[in-house]
Amino acid sequence: MSLGEFEIIARYFDRPPADPDVLLGIGDDAAVLAIGGSAVVAVDTLVAGVHFHDAIAADALGHRALAVNLSDLAAMGATPRWCTLALTVPKADDEWLEAFARGLFALAERHGVSLVGGDLTRGPLTVTVQVIGTAGARSLTRAGGHPGDDVYVTGSLGDAAGGIALVAERHPAASAAANALRERFCRPTPRVAEGVALAPYASAAIDVSDGLLADLGHICERSGCGAVVDVERVPLSAELLTLFPPQQALAYALAGGDDYELCFTAPPAQAERIEAALEACGTPARRIGQLVAGEGVVCRRDGEPFTPPSRGYTHF
Amino acid sequence: MSLGEFEIIARYFDRPPADPDVLLGIGDDAAVLAIGGSAVVAVDTLVAGVHFHDAIAADALGHRALAVNLSDLAAMGATPRWCTLALTVPKADDEWLEAFARGLFALAERHGVSLVGGDLTRGPLTVTVQVIGTAGARSLTRAGGHPGDDVYVTGSLGDAAGGIALVAERHPAASAAANALRERFCRPTPRVAEGVALAPYASAAIDVSDGLLADLGHICERSGCGAVVDVERVPLSAELLTLFPPQQALAYALAGGDDYELCFTAPPAQAERIEAALEACGTPARRIGQLVAGEGVVCRRDGEPFTPPSRGYTHF
Repeated sequence: MSLGEFEIIARYFDRPPADPDVLLGIGDDAAVLAIGGSAVVAVDTLVAGVHFHDAIAADALGHRALAVNLSDLAAMGATPRWCTLALTVPKADDEWLEAFARGLFALAERHGVSLVGGDLTRGPLTVTVQVIGTAGARSLTRAGGHPGDDVYVTGSLGDAAGGIALVAERHPAASAAANALRERFCRPTPRVAEGVALAPYASAAIDVSDGLLADLGHICERSGCGAVVDVERVPLSAELLTLFPPQQALAYALAGGDDYELCFTAPPAQAERIEAALEACGTPARRIGQLVAGEGVVCRRDGEPFTPPSRGYTHF
Repeated sequence: MSLGEFEIIARYFDRPPADPDVLLGIGDDAAVLAIGGSAVVAVDTLVAGVHFHDAIAADALGHRALAVNLSDLAAMGATPRWCTLALTVPKADDEWLEAFARGLFALAERHGVSLVGGDLTRGPLTVTVQVIGTAGARSLTRAGGHPGDDVYVTGSLGDAAGGIALVAERHPAASAAANALRERFCRPTPRVAEGVALAPYASAAIDVSDGLLADLGHICERSGCGAVVDVERVPLSAELLTLFPPQQALAYALAGGDDYELCFTAPPAQAERIEAALEACGTPARRIGQLVAGEGVVCRRDGEPFTPPSRGYTHF
């Protein structure tokens, strides 16, 4: 027997937030939030069959739908506080909803984020999460880069693309490396603390969702400059290099997307502060190139021109 | 040839807001908004084939997607300021996108609302709009009603349900009355000024989206009381009564939904202030019953018990 909208919300999603700044949460026409200063708002939609494979588990989808939005706020140096959920599901499947809510709330709690409202509708599976956060003293935009700034990325790139390939091919690899890559796609780690820590020193930032070259390209467009990437410096994980040949691993890292690492820029004079800020988060960062005068992103390999195999995700 | 995501956003949706409180709008990872005090947040999704008929024009859909959210803020007595749009479309259809954006922005401009961000994805047609506004001195919730309070509705009810019937049956009526009903469904008028004007005097409010009896039922549940509706007092438009027999018109008004009028409650001592507040908005309001001790909504007709033909929209 299928549940009604209100029963589903009550059973799975209406968890009274501990946050005293949620003046009114789920259950009325709108939520009321005490925000001192500036609010930072991001929204992202995941559509079944477009942004995720049917094989993705419901709890991973709940995690992922929130993670991609937390990642947007991380790229602003903002602190996420609240979220809303617009969930469209073909039917009221108890087990699925329970797992989805579990994945969403586990990540939300880790970041002190309260679900304050939403809309539950029937239709093709689509998940839209909106996150609202508070801005730090300085918001990290895509537009603040200058020629001469160093270009950095956190963590490692290409793992999620490798994970997608394993899921899509229903790769039987049950090794620790294969599991790690699949998890990187299914349960990405938004770099929230890192974004906040970088905000005072970085000049521009974006999260890597479409692929490094595409996303760095967005920084270049908005900052009115170009970039050079030294591809041999792009960080690749041991797991990725275990399961894929080096050329394939590099292609995933340059164009793969879905890693939700931060790509950011900073003047060379800030290098030590950047390093210290990220060390305090326990997250490695690697300098992979520089912003330059001009436009567009070009790659070098050991100082020689290098043509990447692909440029990143195209949405249409 | 189909446009890419970024071209579509630039062409149709990236209109720099005049609002100086939009510190950062479309084009970065998130929007940054200067909010003094409390933010009021609502989100609603419209799914093709579930919430709207294929026959609805794209500009009406753009209007409607925003209107239903403005209506939620109206029911809180809040002032809408900003919105985000998560739009999922099966393909990049120039003509459709232009009309959709036109409908959305026309209504947004009428209410001083800026589109500050969003996500454009490919998939089954689904529109999720989120509105963020600022709270007044007092937020109107569903929970503030007390036995003895009067129950009011603004405008007239049942028109949208009549309009849906005309659209679904492809009713050939080209009369002014038929057009008026269709417009009430396709381009509902959110009662934003009315909500703000009522907020100091009303005890509880909701917007009529699921149907009067269902929505008044939500006020009763949250307020811990019941309600009696005198059905002969429920306001029906001349247009509705021209096109439908009186029993059908009443059924639409009690259970039809989609009118986006406000249903609100207030102590009898506030009756004159309520009337003056709505008169200043140019909007009629009618007292249709009372909150009572107990639970549930019951109907009377000329003082006698009356069983309504249906209770309202069920979401699953």
